[in-house]
Order: sequence, then C-alpha cells, then structure tokens
Amino acid sequence: MELAGVLEACLYAPDLRAAENFYVLVLKLQVLGRVEGRHVFFRCGRGVFLIFNPQHTGTIPTFVNGKPIPLHGATGPGHVAFGVPSEAMDGWRRWLEQQTVPIEAEVHWPEGGRSLYFRDPAGNSVELATPEVWGLGESSGTAPRR
Amino acid sequence: MELAGVLEACLYAPDLRAAENFYVLVLKLQVLGRVEGRHVFFRCGRGVFLIFNPQHTGTIPTFVNGKPIPLHGATGPGHVAFGVPSEAMDGWRRWLEQQTVPIEAEVHWPEGGRSLYFRDPAGNSVELATPEVWGLGESSGTAPRR
Repeated sequence: MELAGVLEACLYAPDLRAAENFYVLVLKLQVLGRVEGRHVFFRCGRGVFLIFNPQHTGTIPTFVNGKPIPLHGATGPGHVAFGVPSEAMDGWRRWLEQQTVPIEAEVHWPEGGRSLYFRDPAGNSVELATPEVWGLGESSGTAPRR
Repeated sequence: MELAGVLEACLYAPDLRAAENFYVLVLKLQVLGRVEGRHVFFRCGRGVFLIFNPQHTGTIPTFVNGKPIPLHGATGPGHVAFGVPSEAMDGWRRWLEQQTVPIEAEVHWPEGGRSLYFRDPAGNSVELATPEVWGLGESSGTAPRR
C-alpha cells in the first residue's frame, strides 16, 4: 500500500475574492468550485489546490449525507509550490513582473533547479519551482534541501 | 503557460519527531530530508509533502547562496489529502484501525468517490481520498464539492 500522491494541497485566506482573483488572473488556475465565504477550489495538474476561509471551515461544520466534515483552519502564512518546467521559468518571471507581483526571492539551488517566491494577497508564501529542485525533473538524483 | 501541478504541499507541526513517526509508520511515506527542529520532508508520488515547525520557519531565515528564503509558518489545524486508489481504500481503513488511529469521518461523496479523515499528531486534518472525488479517477466528469 502506497499513497499515490498529494491530491489536495490547501492554503487559507480570509478574503476569498482577492485570493480567487490572484490565482486565476496571475497564476492562471481554473476554478473548480466555490462557496461564498467558505472556499474556492482550483484544478491544478493531477490534483486540486484549495483555498479555505479559516474563519468558516475552522468553526462551522459542513454536512455530507448528514455527517460533519472535520473542521480545519490555520492562520498565519502557509506555503505551497507549483511545478513549472525549466523552459517556462523566465516567462513566468516576466509575467509576474508585468502583473506587478513583487518577487520576494529567486533561488538557484546548489543541487540544481530554480525557484521564484512571492506572496498571495493573504500573505501566503507561493513558490514556482522547477522539478529538478527535488530531483524530479530532467536531471538525475535527488536533491533534499531547504 | 500553465502550472504543471502542486509540487510541494505543506503542513505545520511543532513536534517534528511525532510528525515523522506518524507519516512514516502510519502513512508509509519515505523521508526525503530533515533538519532537526526545522522540518521533515517526504516524497509523495510526483511531488513532495513538507512538514515545517512554524516556530522555526516563521521567524528564523534560512540562507541559500547568501539569500534568505521567505519566512512562512501557520498555526492551527491545516488540511491535506492524499490520493488512494479505490481498491486500496478498505485496506487503508483496516490499517488505520490496526494502528489505533481514530477515523474522524468517512464520507461517500454524492457525486462519487470516498474519503477517510483522521488527525496527525499536530491536529492537522489528513484525508485519504479516491481520485473520483474530484472527477480525476476512473469515473467521468468533475465533481466539485465540499
């Protein structure tokens, strides 16, 4: 038995409209669903990326078939990284600059790979990274780091 | 330009040893790297799953090539879901019971798919879900929900 991978990665944002605007307009993700004041969900590659309003999901149960879904809701800056092919990284950098998104950091990892860091409107640390950062890309070997 | 998928999904835990024990022994993830008191990283399918100690990553910069990596660190229960093939779900349920991990909820989604929810030692809401939950599995169509 082995887990197939991460199916849902989540971040939290009290202002869901600002979050949706950012992830749709800047990061070009496709909205999969939303419930006003509670969440906005995005499709992303082979999984989904979920933004929840922690003031809602941390305190108000949602019921499915009469059973409550477990509560969760974090505060403070979380982190997510999206995969970007090496050859697309320069284009993403230019695009973020055009969108006047401040690049907080740009890292060329000693073991290979490259990352761009910036913030979403809720202050979460968002990263675009090439798969080689984790030894998952074209280059061989694993590169545990950070 | 399109993001290839989620490369890093993250949760936070002040007790990293308890977290590592849980994710290795119960969820059978493979450790990719650790820094005592700061983080433990796991490989998971086509990406990685990262646990950070928010008391560290939220306040103490880590430098790569002389540049600081952006700070992040959330508190309160976060959420992650791992993909599990439908045919493996009963086996995972039995395994969690054998490991005396309380199942907080089991959901058969109206649109298809099934989820098991439980907590990690830090109180994060962990879910095992079949890909059909998101219309990503054998069955067709998308099933936005939650």
